[in-house]
Amino acid sequence: MAYNLLKGKKGIIFGALNEQSIAWQTALKAHEEGAQLVLTNTAVAMRLGTIAELGKICNAEIIPADATSSEDIENLLKKSMEIFGGKVDFVLHSIGMSPNVRKGLPYDALNYDYFHKTLDISALSFHKILLSARKLDAIKEWGSVVALSYVAAQRTLDKYNDMGDAKALLESIARSFGYIYGKDKKIRVNTISQSPTMTTAGAGVKGIDSLIDFTERMSPLGNASAEDCANYIVTLFSDLTKKVTMQNLYHDGGFSSMGMSERAMRQYDKSFNDCD
Amino acid sequence: MAYNLLKGKKGIIFGALNEQSIAWQTALKAHEEGAQLVLTNTAVAMRLGTIAELGKICNAEIIPADATSSEDIENLLKKSMEIFGGKVDFVLHSIGMSPNVRKGLPYDALNYDYFHKTLDISALSFHKILLSARKLDAIKEWGSVVALSYVAAQRTLDKYNDMGDAKALLESIARSFGYIYGKDKKIRVNTISQSPTMTTAGAGVKGIDSLIDFTERMSPLGNASAEDCANYIVTLFSDLTKKVTMQNLYHDGGFSSMGMSERAMRQYDKSFNDCD
Amino acid sequence: MAYNLLKGKKGIIFGALNEQSIAWQTALKAHEEGAQLVLTNTAVAMRLGTIAELGKICNAEIIPADATSSEDIENLLKKSMEIFGGKVDFVLHSIGMSPNVRKGLPYDALNYDYFHKTLDISALSFHKILLSARKLDAIKEWGSVVALSYVAAQRTLDKYNDMGDAKALLESIARSFGYIYGKDKKIRVNTISQSPTMTTAGAGVKGIDSLIDFTERMSPLGNASAEDCANYIVTLFSDLTKKVTMQNLYHDGGFSSMGMSERAMRQYDKSFNDCD
Amino acid sequence: MAYNLLKGKKGIIFGALNEQSIAWQTALKAHEEGAQLVLTNTAVAMRLGTIAELGKICNAEIIPADATSSEDIENLLKKSMEIFGGKVDFVLHSIGMSPNVRKGLPYDALNYDYFHKTLDISALSFHKILLSARKLDAIKEWGSVVALSYVAAQRTLDKYNDMGDAKALLESIARSFGYIYGKDKKIRVNTISQSPTMTTAGAGVKGIDSLIDFTERMSPLGNASAEDCANYIVTLFSDLTKKVTMQNLYHDGGFSSMGMSERAMRQYDKSFNDCD
Repeated sequence: MAYNLLKGKKGIIFGALNEQSIAWQTALKAHEEGAQLVLTNTAVAMRLGTIAELGKICNAEIIPADATSSEDIENLLKKSMEIFGGKVDFVLHSIGMSPNVRKGLPYDALNYDYFHKTLDISALSFHKILLSARKLDAIKEWGSVVALSYVAAQRTLDKYNDMGDAKALLESIARSFGYIYGKDKKIRVNTISQSPTMTTAGAGVKGIDSLIDFTERMSPLGNASAEDCANYIVTLFSDLTKKVTMQNLYHDGGFSSMGMSERAMRQYDKSFNDCD
Repeated sequence: MAYNLLKGKKGIIFGALNEQSIAWQTALKAHEEGAQLVLTNTAVAMRLGTIAELGKICNAEIIPADATSSEDIENLLKKSMEIFGGKVDFVLHSIGMSPNVRKGLPYDALNYDYFHKTLDISALSFHKILLSARKLDAIKEWGSVVALSYVAAQRTLDKYNDMGDAKALLESIARSFGYIYGKDKKIRVNTISQSPTMTTAGAGVKGIDSLIDFTERMSPLGNASAEDCANYIVTLFSDLTKKVTMQNLYHDGGFSSMGMSERAMRQYDKSFNDCD
Repeated sequence: MAYNLLKGKKGIIFGALNEQSIAWQTALKAHEEGAQLVLTNTAVAMRLGTIAELGKICNAEIIPADATSSEDIENLLKKSMEIFGGKVDFVLHSIGMSPNVRKGLPYDALNYDYFHKTLDISALSFHKILLSARKLDAIKEWGSVVALSYVAAQRTLDKYNDMGDAKALLESIARSFGYIYGKDKKIRVNTISQSPTMTTAGAGVKGIDSLIDFTERMSPLGNASAEDCANYIVTLFSDLTKKVTMQNLYHDGGFSSMGMSERAMRQYDKSFNDCD
Repeated sequence: MAYNLLKGKKGIIFGALNEQSIAWQTALKAHEEGAQLVLTNTAVAMRLGTIAELGKICNAEIIPADATSSEDIENLLKKSMEIFGGKVDFVLHSIGMSPNVRKGLPYDALNYDYFHKTLDISALSFHKILLSARKLDAIKEWGSVVALSYVAAQRTLDKYNDMGDAKALLESIARSFGYIYGKDKKIRVNTISQSPTMTTAGAGVKGIDSLIDFTERMSPLGNASAEDCANYIVTLFSDLTKKVTMQNLYHDGGFSSMGMSERAMRQYDKSFNDCD
């Protein structure tokens, strides 16, 4: 069911790899809600994934860009404004990667060049997008910018490694730039702290199956899916949430406010059963 | 502009006194978005305010109820279900009052019967509504319940007195019941922490003008108005936010994430000007 | 090992029942650190427990008081000042009880008179102590007041019932009164959010064994014991923490900042083992 | 007054420049409390400041080290262990610098090489110290590591620029490493979020005078000084706080829990006086 919530709005979506991607689902949903889109990802991700297919469904142009390159971002923004015939209403940042995680370097033996790269890709890229947008005056007044985060920014998860730190930095950048961009242009900047999601990126985290089982049982409404998240993001892009800014919004079926649920405790208790 | 976001949905709205009320604005907006409503307030508030007028505009029945009375609430829920011909989709709780504030008793000399009354009216009433709804199975699966809160739940404000404590309790009840109602019926329960608003209730707080000026200058997007809040609430009642629960959501133009803004600091600095 | 951290200081300790009590351990430790003490509990708790023994060890007088009775509290404070020959330096509030939990009434079918009683005993009692102390000017400038809380104030725990709400209210009262008492008398007011502890009160919570096992595995330093907590409280009573106020301080081996630990996940995973 | 709280303990203190430094005051206090110290700073800071004097007072050796250089840190740790004849009990990290702030580049026009440098100096240096310590097994079991932070990690302050982000990252690193180091070696890692302090670093922040006036009036106990902070740090290095880890501890006279104080509001109101 569609409401035309984004009718006439124009947006850029970073990070759609394939159908599992939250960015992919958001593009579908934003398109359904009447938005005109530009999609973007790195050249590598575009080869690995199936973004061309999404472009067709959404009738959206695809412009490759490395979100760590200010030059690429400026090019993307300029071309998008040409395509749109004007400024952008909303932006989704769904980007994160840790070379330390990829290479299996544990947190107490990580490589610092990689650490900087993790921060650059997963957090500073958000700053670069906002800075370039501001420089080019690319976002309309009362526009909306969202980045995807995770509860690891507040609570340490085994093996999540330097990605937890990157998410903390990302959320801080959202606040810091939200202040600047808000006072001058009334543009709001928020992060969504989403349930662990079985995206291609998520699937790369060791032990994610067990974690997803645990959070599913802990969360009274269960984990939020990529589709659920897309729905939520659309409300944040709409004109109905104009005064929400500098927030980290948990979208997780209640997980973040749970200490212990009956279901999780019951499952945990089974672990003590003897198998004779 | 309307989107039919609440088309076919039925809701109960507590606490509309007059046009300034957030509950009033929410009723208007929910009506525009296609919802069928029942309005309620205490008999006294109904006499003091102009809720009958709102009922006409929204084509909504008005059922008086004292939200501290489980009997009244049950009556309200039963009648609402009769009117709706079925269960309720959403509920707004916008109720708060402190006899200690009214009588001008300061926090370090308050009356404990009044303190219990503050808690009963402003926080336990929310529990009573949820308990009665659950007992009568009055809310549909994936329904949405929202209560209005304030940042005083986290940060002490001079003269806000026992209302800060009441809001902290209210937010806790939202979490506690959100767990129960979520795991069994998938019903979500959230609070919105709204900017200080010049409602009739707000106007009763001493020094609210100065505070509103300060928060206006601190918040990059300025204070959120009652109309803004109504828009936001509608997104939380919609089907697009199904996995958001047990959250306290700041709707305040960024205030809650600000340490110090340029505008507020500049104004503050003027206080040191000598007047010769 | 003792440091004379509280040498010459005088303090009142509420809530010591028996050796398991955090209040008991705090009394022992404060005594070791050179403080002179008055112990107090309700008449019933004094019969059930062994506080007389503690009085002997600590060379402390015991004055019965019901912490929900302003009259009892005033009597206690006056007598304490007589005994001390002057004002009090520190106070520990370690009091909590829920008739709803005791009677086995679940959160969605609780009794509201009991709910008010839970709040009165577990939270408003703290306000009453502070109000009476202020009225009698019973606490020295730069004195320190501590109440014991639990993470249930922020995150819902199955079966913890209205005690979670009571703890949220308690923490709010600590902030609210901390403002008042701080600005006028430089007295600091804080809460400690302690690991689940196998006290007599804790043992009454259903399923506490499993919970304690889980938090032990989640917390990198393991759960904090009553003795650990006593040590921490002593630092908050000392002159070394004069500028810490209105805080809720987690004393839990790291639990509150954990999303998932290796140990807890490994144990959880065992629950899926088939027993053939 | 001294308590021998750190008797027999050995510690390394990073970041003492001159008497204004929190690190300087901490060294003095830790020395008074019986600790043996090694002091360290960059070669540049050693020339600019007067650390040699502090070394004499505390009878401490001074080993220059650039905290962004793993090599320097390892050298420092090895030499310290030689001097101490064994492992270290505690470490203080009091390091922060932003080239963007220094060069006056605003947040929406900052230089990304500088941004990485800000993060490297102010946050990753903490990770490097912990990683090297762990590699060399340089910290004793139940040791304590503290880094200094600021509320800008949670709330945006005008002109604080990328230092707010750096502090958010620093606090996240404390949590992340606190998990690792805690589970294996029982070493605790915390940050202290200190009042704005008129250190040499603080004095470099534009408009800090006004901010300090505001926070002084907002905080019921007034701002915490460098000496106050030193006292608090000593409690965290002591054996009395063994189960506190992965926490960010506000040491700010109550500021972080304040929404609005009477004193600040009164001063703010003066800004509206007409000067005719």
